[in-house]
Amino acid sequence: MGITKFMTPEIIFGTHSLSQVGESMLRLGAKKVFVVSDPGVVNASWVEKAIHYLKECKLDYYLWSDTTPNPKDYEVEVGVKAYRESGCNAVVGIGGGSAIDAAKSIALLGTNEGTIHQYEGVDHVARPLPPMVMVPTTAGAGSEVSQFSIIVDSKRKVKMTIISKSLIPDIAIIDPQTLMTKDARLTANTGMDALTHAIESYISLAATPLTEVYSLQAIRLIAKYLRPSVASQHNREAKEAMAMASLQAGIAFSNAILGAVHAMSHQLGGFLDLPHGEVNAILLPYVLEFNMISSPEKYKNIAAAFGENVNGLSLTDAAQLAIKAVKDLASDLDIPDSLSNLGLQEEQLDFLSHNAVQDACMVTNPRDMSATDVKMLFHKVLRCEF
Amino acid sequence: MGITKFMTPEIIFGTHSLSQVGESMLRLGAKKVFVVSDPGVVNASWVEKAIHYLKECKLDYYLWSDTTPNPKDYEVEVGVKAYRESGCNAVVGIGGGSAIDAAKSIALLGTNEGTIHQYEGVDHVARPLPPMVMVPTTAGAGSEVSQFSIIVDSKRKVKMTIISKSLIPDIAIIDPQTLMTKDARLTANTGMDALTHAIESYISLAATPLTEVYSLQAIRLIAKYLRPSVASQHNREAKEAMAMASLQAGIAFSNAILGAVHAMSHQLGGFLDLPHGEVNAILLPYVLEFNMISSPEKYKNIAAAFGENVNGLSLTDAAQLAIKAVKDLASDLDIPDSLSNLGLQEEQLDFLSHNAVQDACMVTNPRDMSATDVKMLFHKVLRCEF
Ligand SMILES: [Fe+2]
Ligand SMILES: [Fe+2]
Repeated sequence: MGITKFMTPEIIFGTHSLSQVGESMLRLGAKKVFVVSDPGVVNASWVEKAIHYLKECKLDYYLWSDTTPNPKDYEVEVGVKAYRESGCNAVVGIGGGSAIDAAKSIALLGTNEGTIHQYEGVDHVARPLPPMVMVPTTAGAGSEVSQFSIIVDSKRKVKMTIISKSLIPDIAIIDPQTLMTKDARLTANTGMDALTHAIESYISLAATPLTEVYSLQAIRLIAKYLRPSVASQHNREAKEAMAMASLQAGIAFSNAILGAVHAMSHQLGGFLDLPHGEVNAILLPYVLEFNMISSPEKYKNIAAAFGENVNGLSLTDAAQLAIKAVKDLASDLDIPDSLSNLGLQEEQLDFLSHNAVQDACMVTNPRDMSATDVKMLFHKVLRCEF
Repeated sequence: MGITKFMTPEIIFGTHSLSQVGESMLRLGAKKVFVVSDPGVVNASWVEKAIHYLKECKLDYYLWSDTTPNPKDYEVEVGVKAYRESGCNAVVGIGGGSAIDAAKSIALLGTNEGTIHQYEGVDHVARPLPPMVMVPTTAGAGSEVSQFSIIVDSKRKVKMTIISKSLIPDIAIIDPQTLMTKDARLTANTGMDALTHAIESYISLAATPLTEVYSLQAIRLIAKYLRPSVASQHNREAKEAMAMASLQAGIAFSNAILGAVHAMSHQLGGFLDLPHGEVNAILLPYVLEFNMISSPEKYKNIAAAFGENVNGLSLTDAAQLAIKAVKDLASDLDIPDSLSNLGLQEEQLDFLSHNAVQDACMVTNPRDMSATDVKMLFHKVLRCEF
């Protein structure tokens, strides 16, 4: 093993932990807080609550809630302008992965020059960011603990992956209560995103013993709790378990990076503005089948984490059960098994495949993938040829 | 579950990672680095190597290598004086838990007033510490990732437990190569200390899903690799695994705290200057027997992590196997099974028991313990009445 690195923000987890947002910002030296969110989270009253806790700590604030799913470069630009004019010196992001990714990129440009495009790739951030506290309200994205921010380049129609230790928030506050206002579809999609993080980080070429235990534990929790969490908005035990699963998968993938599912889904998200979790869920079994020869032992462990009985099976048979378990879960959650309904055209595949192999997440995929391999997989997914 | 917190330093792990000490200090803004170590580590040439890497980054340094096992308040005082006079603005600790604990307390007093005694207990540190990079050379103490510093109050003859998030180093550099100069006795003792961290943090009242997976994985690694690591100084695989086990146990106990073994051994360390790891190893099975009714399910998991076959056993029988596995390991490593040879007198027990129940580590022990309980246990350990 070579030299590996591992980093997480300070984590505050638990029911009512949202109440710590003011004290956390205060501790980081905030005077006026730029609050980034989206209209859905504002409607669910979580932003109002967060602002209440900021005020309790005598903190001034400015609310900017114009983020959208798959946040775009021009939105970040508007956000940065608002940040600069607001006189804020700290950032709170509250919402799903999109709101938090936008908040992180706004914070980045709050202290660094130029446009967000200059920071695509690994480690291009020169100056420290303003203090950041992130509060996820969907158990999935993991952006609250990661060194990633994913922003759409609207001209090129691709998702830019921005990776830097500077993007790791100072404090992540995970309050499972915020999951109780999500509808079933969003719960299923974001839960499958968390599962994809857990699995891709586990079989990643950059996995380490510090990340693998979290990846596996996240898989165990998702296998047990995602179905009941989708079934009811009010199942506290399931919400808490899914919040923990998403957190553990987030810590794992921030440090072990991801793989081909994300490299491919970033293209669909950037090009067609498709929902990230759902696209991942559709792609996951296809990519798992392709990657299988890279790490059958790990596939066997994934199957066992899903509760499949792997005793007495050959290694390949046991490994296959991992793919079966993923498909069973997706099917129970009514995830489509093909991309055909999502508006993807055959003639777009060359462009998407070419970009997918350039994606930062492809580097750690455990099986080498050419643009031809990616196109073949996209083909299969379009025609539902599993 | 209430609100829980979790925090680790940035971690750099792997063979030759010592080479990152200069760059790490540079990144944290160091100009002149105060290097804290002990004569043994200096002899093994690790300090020389660390200083070489500091110089490569054009960093000035001052070496202070007068720490001893169970570091004392008056040593910290001398160290702080040297720190202040040296004009340093950053601290590197390189060595076992004692050197690193001393380094952390020196750093604390480098920016905070008064004597170290004022900081005993939880969260009394007002000002941020100078940047700290810690390099452990024994796989055991875990101080490189923890929020603890344990310093002997030489007048009261007790160990003070100082707990503060400020004591978490900025960067921990874990280079398994440094373990290859440890003798078998030190390897066994520090390895048993790591095991005690793993087990006490796992059954701690403050354990969380984020700490439990690391505790269990550390137990698995120690069960498999501590014997071969004690057997040979040259077994690279075993050294790397023990370095990882110690790291995972360290992250776990820093966030979940410990229990009665440490509460009791802190007294023996403070009063008789006994070696921390060995005392823990002797106490561990006795305390495990006492604590068993608190968490038989967890004991069963510990037994399974040790590779014991728990299938088909009753819960209590399976739980008992955890204690058996710990005793077997200690016996294979020639750990004494009683305190009788360590110079402890019957008439000292009241004093020690009274102080043990006041120790910060006692709060999270999973079974309530009175001074009478502690005394009864000390008695048993003295007379080897298992
Ligand atoms: Fe994702
Ligand atoms: Fe210890």
